[in-house]
Amino acid sequence: MKKLLLTFTAVALISIGIPASATASVKIVDQAICETEVLDAQQNWCKALIDISTTYAKNGHSEAKALAEQIIDQAYGYQMGTVLFKPTLTTEPQTFRTTSRGALSYFVGGDQKFPDDSGFALKGWTKCEPENAAIFIAGNTASTMGKVHFTDVDGNVTTVDKTWVFFKDDSGQIRIMVHHSSLEYDGQ
Amino acid sequence: MKKLLLTFTAVALISIGIPASATASVKIVDQAICETEVLDAQQNWCKALIDISTTYAKNGHSEAKALAEQIIDQAYGYQMGTVLFKPTLTTEPQTFRTTSRGALSYFVGGDQKFPDDSGFALKGWTKCEPENAAIFIAGNTASTMGKVHFTDVDGNVTTVDKTWVFFKDDSGQIRIMVHHSSLEYDGQ
Amino acid sequence: MKKLLLTFTAVALISIGIPASATASVKIVDQAICETEVLDAQQNWCKALIDISTTYAKNGHSEAKALAEQIIDQAYGYQMGTVLFKPTLTTEPQTFRTTSRGALSYFVGGDQKFPDDSGFALKGWTKCEPENAAIFIAGNTASTMGKVHFTDVDGNVTTVDKTWVFFKDDSGQIRIMVHHSSLEYDGQ
Amino acid sequence: MKKLLLTFTAVALISIGIPASATASVKIVDQAICETEVLDAQQNWCKALIDISTTYAKNGHSEAKALAEQIIDQAYGYQMGTVLFKPTLTTEPQTFRTTSRGALSYFVGGDQKFPDDSGFALKGWTKCEPENAAIFIAGNTASTMGKVHFTDVDGNVTTVDKTWVFFKDDSGQIRIMVHHSSLEYDGQ
Repeated sequence: MKKLLLTFTAVALISIGIPASATASVKIVDQAICETEVLDAQQNWCKALIDISTTYAKNGHSEAKALAEQIIDQAYGYQMGTVLFKPTLTTEPQTFRTTSRGALSYFVGGDQKFPDDSGFALKGWTKCEPENAAIFIAGNTASTMGKVHFTDVDGNVTTVDKTWVFFKDDSGQIRIMVHHSSLEYDGQ
Repeated sequence: MKKLLLTFTAVALISIGIPASATASVKIVDQAICETEVLDAQQNWCKALIDISTTYAKNGHSEAKALAEQIIDQAYGYQMGTVLFKPTLTTEPQTFRTTSRGALSYFVGGDQKFPDDSGFALKGWTKCEPENAAIFIAGNTASTMGKVHFTDVDGNVTTVDKTWVFFKDDSGQIRIMVHHSSLEYDGQ
Repeated sequence: MKKLLLTFTAVALISIGIPASATASVKIVDQAICETEVLDAQQNWCKALIDISTTYAKNGHSEAKALAEQIIDQAYGYQMGTVLFKPTLTTEPQTFRTTSRGALSYFVGGDQKFPDDSGFALKGWTKCEPENAAIFIAGNTASTMGKVHFTDVDGNVTTVDKTWVFFKDDSGQIRIMVHHSSLEYDGQ
Repeated sequence: MKKLLLTFTAVALISIGIPASATASVKIVDQAICETEVLDAQQNWCKALIDISTTYAKNGHSEAKALAEQIIDQAYGYQMGTVLFKPTLTTEPQTFRTTSRGALSYFVGGDQKFPDDSGFALKGWTKCEPENAAIFIAGNTASTMGKVHFTDVDGNVTTVDKTWVFFKDDSGQIRIMVHHSSLEYDGQ
């Protein structure tokens, strides 16, 4: 999607009278993130969550776990060395999931090393809706902040406050490098 | 601090035998953020919070507010257009403080537009200690995630989960562009 | 142009069924450079060169110099601390024009400090056509490389090899931070 | 070199009195380029040129070509899609070498597709000395501009004007994405 190698005849040049023979095929490498890529990446995260939920309901834990593993591998940037991940429902001393194993356990549970994880992606989610408050794009990274609304199979909606920082890697893939999710403050 | 214009004789060149007459003064513009700058910016945020608390205790609300205004102006990036700020204790529909007025109200209260704000910086903080879990530096931005421990005048410690994205502006100043703070999940 | 603060209803969200009441106005700060901005910046550089040439022919050196000063101030990034500028026709020890004064002298001459400068922008240019070979966009910077064809008042065409690195500053303005121009190698 | 995963006890925190038990191991992913990395990359380019020259003299064209291939693969960013490369001695219509094959031919010649290339790296270079005029670091990229002095086996020195833009890839390797080299203008 990103590191596209476009070959186009430079239209702008024609408009100022450059002869056709002078137009060239231009190779383009583009590492910047654009807004639609950010919105797509959010939708993809939501879709992945629901896919894991659905797979769990239909095919059981083992298939859901395999899918989650694959999704984390593609959507997060653990291969960069770490990810800054604070899931909604984790507690000390395992609040931050800076390894892919810790992320996997959060989403599908079943890891003795993380005994408190029950598997956030297994909770029967049917809808997942990001609602952005603001976006900050700086070069190869894009930060978003806002609400995300999760609807479960009974129609109950859970809302969290969520910050993501997306990073475009060398191959043009958008990956999550920062993910901070928290329950809404209850005002007490 | 950043956009330093160093004039140095390129030592590396000498080592491979370039004659002294060929060494040149090199002008350097450096927009990248280094790790110590990130740690300093965190300490500065903490120091600023305590300064506002102390000023409030000694000189009252009006001086504390003036100081907070100045600090927000220098430490955050609202002049870029917005900041992605989710303070610890805000609620719907004013969860996100994407304007400097909303940030000021959160720290010192007293704004009718934000009636639930009591002023987080006025709570008698005496200590503020960041404890990083991970840091991601990508060009002109640096993301940090971890705990921050606040100690009040009675010695009580409040701990929050905090994500910051710092941005180095054109003048070399490090500014907060993303700030997500949340109470620790209580495990219920 | 860049640091736009869009207010839009997030169409993508609607498509997955989020209720209208939940759509939000999203504040966006975008520091990334897009391809059209790069092509525009090249055209603007060309237009500026011809403007200086035309002003010189019609209104004399003093007005041409004033215009050049203004253009350099807006199109280059000298206020960042320096610019990496190697003009086509400069020689040792004044090859590189890392100050705005050196750039001004190159374009309009008349500075005793740079006795060899005759004023490149005063040579009666009537056309200026960039022809890109490749573009590399990495976050807040975009590099271009290619030919630029200059046509003078007699119809003679001069072609140079040119590399630019454009930088998007905090206010969203695209500025030249690197400019290397050279005559084509004559193959001898 | 770059994407280091440091584990350090945060010294700055200790200095403000945080208890030892609260210090944490911090994972760090650092994509920014620092100045010493830039200077090293320049020295590595020079060293590679001399290595190819030496290999050619000692072991012939085939080994020199194999070495050049390996060096281009490691030092340039062709795997990103293209590189903006304008070598010193190329002419139309093959001025720009946006493919690795074109770069290889420039350095070691012997490719029918580029009949004018005689192999710049085969010219018996014994010394290569960069002399920077200015450096601009913006996030994951660093631009340098200056002279490079090449000394051949007879002690003759050739000087060129050279611009490089280095890019730090996901694995932390510094790669050349822009390389514009030109003979000094002779002032005629």
